[in-house]
Amino acid sequence: MEEEHRAILWDGGSVRLINQRLLPGEFKWENLRTVEEVAQAIEDLTVRGAMSIGAAGALGVALSAVRVEESGDPDAAALILRDIERLSATRPTARNLFWALSRMRDVLDGVRQSTAEGIREVLVKEALAIVEETEESNRLLVEFGQELIPEECVVLTHCNTGFLAGVRYGTALGIISHAHSLGKRITVLVDETRPLLQGARLTAWELVQQGIPHFLITDSMAGNFMSRGEVDLIITGADRIAANGDTANKIGTYTLAVLAGNAGIPFYIAAPMSTVDTGLASGDEIVIEERDEAEVKSFGGLEVSPGKTPAKNPAFDVTPASLIKAIVTDKGVIRTPFEGRLA
Amino acid sequence: MEEEHRAILWDGGSVRLINQRLLPGEFKWENLRTVEEVAQAIEDLTVRGAMSIGAAGALGVALSAVRVEESGDPDAAALILRDIERLSATRPTARNLFWALSRMRDVLDGVRQSTAEGIREVLVKEALAIVEETEESNRLLVEFGQELIPEECVVLTHCNTGFLAGVRYGTALGIISHAHSLGKRITVLVDETRPLLQGARLTAWELVQQGIPHFLITDSMAGNFMSRGEVDLIITGADRIAANGDTANKIGTYTLAVLAGNAGIPFYIAAPMSTVDTGLASGDEIVIEERDEAEVKSFGGLEVSPGKTPAKNPAFDVTPASLIKAIVTDKGVIRTPFEGRLA
Repeated sequence: MEEEHRAILWDGGSVRLINQRLLPGEFKWENLRTVEEVAQAIEDLTVRGAMSIGAAGALGVALSAVRVEESGDPDAAALILRDIERLSATRPTARNLFWALSRMRDVLDGVRQSTAEGIREVLVKEALAIVEETEESNRLLVEFGQELIPEECVVLTHCNTGFLAGVRYGTALGIISHAHSLGKRITVLVDETRPLLQGARLTAWELVQQGIPHFLITDSMAGNFMSRGEVDLIITGADRIAANGDTANKIGTYTLAVLAGNAGIPFYIAAPMSTVDTGLASGDEIVIEERDEAEVKSFGGLEVSPGKTPAKNPAFDVTPASLIKAIVTDKGVIRTPFEGRLA
Repeated sequence: MEEEHRAILWDGGSVRLINQRLLPGEFKWENLRTVEEVAQAIEDLTVRGAMSIGAAGALGVALSAVRVEESGDPDAAALILRDIERLSATRPTARNLFWALSRMRDVLDGVRQSTAEGIREVLVKEALAIVEETEESNRLLVEFGQELIPEECVVLTHCNTGFLAGVRYGTALGIISHAHSLGKRITVLVDETRPLLQGARLTAWELVQQGIPHFLITDSMAGNFMSRGEVDLIITGADRIAANGDTANKIGTYTLAVLAGNAGIPFYIAAPMSTVDTGLASGDEIVIEERDEAEVKSFGGLEVSPGKTPAKNPAFDVTPASLIKAIVTDKGVIRTPFEGRLA
């Protein structure tokens, strides 16, 4: 596979991925050679973004099969299952990780009696299929999304949903990039996305690479630009979508949707169908990851608040379907009301 | 004057103030001995907060009169007027600075023909009166505000409006501190207030000093806690209030007011009557300070976005009066509708 504009690759014996913690200061590929390294890379956000996490999970299982085959242990399937459990226990909210691991587990179930070599062949093939399907669903999604993007507009987005998050192309930011490549005159307002600044670090970096006009703002400024009539539309990604359209995404997304509704600005979500969790009736059932308070109390190792001040750090919030005008998927644009259309 | 819980003092030949850029890491008093030092301290936020800026401006004029008298220059009034112009050109949005400088200019007009010594005596007296009145208006305001604070509640606030911002006591945070001292069981949700983190650095520091339970959150999390029913009321300060009640305050305030309205949570402003600019019919006429993009592109001095990424940095936004349920002033609580009541 070519590396350009891909965030994660399989090289036969390791998972290669761009270290997203170091950007934009340093661009570096990591070679992860054990499942534990992959799990920790997901936990510490070396790899992040709903679909990139899914791909990392799938390739992590492939890696498990390779290592288990090398070990010569006769109980290959059990060892790989244990590794799948480890990968499942990394981050609770993003749907794609569980979607990918569930597919890998199902395939493993079908070949439990095979040799370690046979299991490895099947799991590597399945993981690569998941990565390829993810790329293809990204490609379709960014094309379907064009119907929502005028020839000239200011688009506000949150967090990072470009190729770094989507393996290739991306979702919300992928739609913006594709619109730019089609000649649309787009300016992007980039929310910095505290606490981990994925907007300021990663989205801004992708936009600089692609020469797309943009301005960075703090999350607290988005409402001001909306109220002044300086935003035409908002589009973000999603980590998990319930059957009714309620959407969990990076903390701050709900706020943007409320502000957009207040200002009469369309608010869109972009995510492949694999992000939809039809097992959940509404967003109330989505598990929200609470991360370490140190991420809020500091940035880049720099402590800014008093040592005795505690912080809260929910990584996601839930935007009710009523505030979402349309969801761009790899099957087309689904407009509100969503009831029954996301199955 | 005693120093405890005062942010700014006059010692006869210099303006003494707590360096708010260094907190919470370092607590340090600065002695400013020239008008230019005072002006720069206002510009670079060594001193900040609507009323502390007003007090710094008034004491800056007193300092001008002292230095001019020492110089022996015969044209004392003209030199002091030039210094008032310099102090006026520091920050455009906060009303109290112009209110204080206007009072100093009026007093100067009345004694232009006096000796430098006579002018100095009058101006020092007037500056000290402004500081004292500011403290007294803070004291009245934090008492009037108690009618809005239940015996047990979670209060969300933005930026810093404690004694650091208000010379003594403060406004919104002063009301919270006073409620705590009266035995009310208050927990404070502290917005970090990007880009300059006045919430994380200064409000958290004041709350730690006073032993008031609190949690730090990023600005993007406030909506999430509101939607989950975990916030009882919101109260912030103000930098300038138009005659109709439209209020300019730290960037992000408008967003909180919209979110509060959406969630059915009362949203209050706390500011003395000197913050009201009856010369402005509505918030559309309020000049909003645009600060250096470097404040947004970096976090605590650490550059986080790509060098080629431009940023926008409006320091304030305007909350329409329709989203404000009441304004706590030093004359009492003024409830919506505000028309005609702020004159």
